[in-house]
Amino acid sequence: MHERHGIGKKTHRLKPKVQAFKLLKVFLLYLSMHNTALGRDAAMSVYTDLSLQEMQDFSEQFDFGGLKSFQGVEAGVENTTYFVSFNQAETVLQIFEEQGFDEVPFFIELNRRLSKDQVPVATPFANKFGDRLFTIKGKPAALFERVRGSTVCPISADACRQIGEALGKIHAVTQTYQDLRRENHRWSNWWESNVDRVIDLTPKDHRTTLKDQVDRSREFVESTASLPQGIIHGDLFCDNALFHNGQLAGIIDFYNACDGCLLFDLAITINDWCSLPTGRLFAETTAALVDGYNRFRPLTTEEIARWPLASETAALRFWMLRLVALARRREGGPQAPPHVKDPNDFLNILIARRADPQCDLISG
Amino acid sequence: MHERHGIGKKTHRLKPKVQAFKLLKVFLLYLSMHNTALGRDAAMSVYTDLSLQEMQDFSEQFDFGGLKSFQGVEAGVENTTYFVSFNQAETVLQIFEEQGFDEVPFFIELNRRLSKDQVPVATPFANKFGDRLFTIKGKPAALFERVRGSTVCPISADACRQIGEALGKIHAVTQTYQDLRRENHRWSNWWESNVDRVIDLTPKDHRTTLKDQVDRSREFVESTASLPQGIIHGDLFCDNALFHNGQLAGIIDFYNACDGCLLFDLAITINDWCSLPTGRLFAETTAALVDGYNRFRPLTTEEIARWPLASETAALRFWMLRLVALARRREGGPQAPPHVKDPNDFLNILIARRADPQCDLISG
Repeated sequence: MHERHGIGKKTHRLKPKVQAFKLLKVFLLYLSMHNTALGRDAAMSVYTDLSLQEMQDFSEQFDFGGLKSFQGVEAGVENTTYFVSFNQAETVLQIFEEQGFDEVPFFIELNRRLSKDQVPVATPFANKFGDRLFTIKGKPAALFERVRGSTVCPISADACRQIGEALGKIHAVTQTYQDLRRENHRWSNWWESNVDRVIDLTPKDHRTTLKDQVDRSREFVESTASLPQGIIHGDLFCDNALFHNGQLAGIIDFYNACDGCLLFDLAITINDWCSLPTGRLFAETTAALVDGYNRFRPLTTEEIARWPLASETAALRFWMLRLVALARRREGGPQAPPHVKDPNDFLNILIARRADPQCDLISG
Repeated sequence: MHERHGIGKKTHRLKPKVQAFKLLKVFLLYLSMHNTALGRDAAMSVYTDLSLQEMQDFSEQFDFGGLKSFQGVEAGVENTTYFVSFNQAETVLQIFEEQGFDEVPFFIELNRRLSKDQVPVATPFANKFGDRLFTIKGKPAALFERVRGSTVCPISADACRQIGEALGKIHAVTQTYQDLRRENHRWSNWWESNVDRVIDLTPKDHRTTLKDQVDRSREFVESTASLPQGIIHGDLFCDNALFHNGQLAGIIDFYNACDGCLLFDLAITINDWCSLPTGRLFAETTAALVDGYNRFRPLTTEEIARWPLASETAALRFWMLRLVALARRREGGPQAPPHVKDPNDFLNILIARRADPQCDLISG
């Protein structure tokens, strides 16, 4: 029952005869004239529309046996994302709506090197001429391998161990990527300058928590100069990791990656993967994630000592991110986000860490 | 930046002129001859291949403004699944590889009625003639609304409350679906007949646990005659619920739905959504799920008293399911599953429930 049925058991490379090829061209032209491109998705998050003709033109520079199908993806909230199937490769096309030609090469090169260094990420593909950065309708674009897998649910200790290992690997191997640099745009300057904008959106009895935490986190930020630095993912939440048959298949969405404090990146990751709905850390998953991490980059004694403030600061960072999104929604305009996740998820985590940072789970 | 760019800002209904339509037909014929259908996916789980011509033929019976694109989906492991985009509807085509024409109408009708009764599920679409059951290459097929959303991760108490409400609604409204019946094929007869097949695949020190639990669960199964019965989902795990902007958008995959004990269905759901990696229940999410459930179908005193055995039996059912899958893989053949999830996830839950069923979380 589980075998493949019917015609077309194998994929074949398109070998158009001249006559048929002319027909194809006319058909494509017809489609684009009538604006009914097969494969264009009407989802809100496809910002840059591509017709079949345009996708066909783009795809011809790749040696993947010809275009098979494509579809716009809803998941991307900042960039335009298409799943593009070639006869010999499954790919993801990213058209960058926010970042410019000066920034995108960082993401492409980071993924390329990580992939080469055996970290499970989406490899960026080169065209026939060796290029990996493309221009589509005046915007930068890249074509990545499509990672096969799905998010893990519910979160297991084994998944956390694998995530810890992958993050440890990322932090270890990127130490050699000395020429890859990107500034952290959402560090203390960013959240400090946004406190007044969001203060009335925070629960009344936690406005002092916000202000006090900003002070505490300033102390942490100033201390990070003496902590290990490198390239951080910045957003390794559980919806950015795809698993296949129980194995981590790929970490995606490096668009928040930048230079930063490695312990802060670990804290961001642990806060999402290992927090219970109360905000407290769950012992088994936290220990597994830290164990996995230590295999590739052992935490230093100083880092372990800085865990409480790192963890609070990571919670503050995402509390502020959601509060600012709420503020942007209130302010309106074309860039106002239609939906904002509940900021209180991170307030709960912050309160729990301030009450008890559970250091024993980090020190092992 | 977030507005849609370029041509094709709106979708248009295909209005072919005669000449262009002939070209289209020739092109489609050309494609099918050369077996390079746009939109056919090479993924392993697409068992029934459809060419563009075949999908075009199928799609013409629907009033959705014409076919736009389609793509095979990897996620379906038992059925063939295609995402099919029309100009006016996003749909999911299911071609049933396991169930026959005698069984599929149950799934279609169940989803149709639940949708009508305001339960968030995928509505099955009728064609121009009012039919909802179709035949594709000799197999039964149905076309469902494509639920917009993704699985929730990490699991929150709020998500659990919504799942409890939806399950309570399902159990309440299906009480009136007296003519919809489907036997439970994997009830005690099924697991009892499989014990010998899997016993050597269980950890040595838990073989007596398995045999003892089968006895305990026989007692539970015999007692269910006096407990509320109805239609159960049977597999309401967190990968079968899609959320959009924090709201439950749809429960999917009713292909294990059948007649059964409602408390058993609740126990299946709680075991997946509310168990910690240790196997124990997490208090906050469990209480939220039960609260939500009670809003639509309050548990009876007798059900609350039967919780310990119901919960153990639900764990046994899925422990056995994975053990049998392991056995099938060992036995080989074309139906052997390539990957089996770890049976010990449910052994851990079973051990935890037997040690402490945490009844206080169920009785409220």
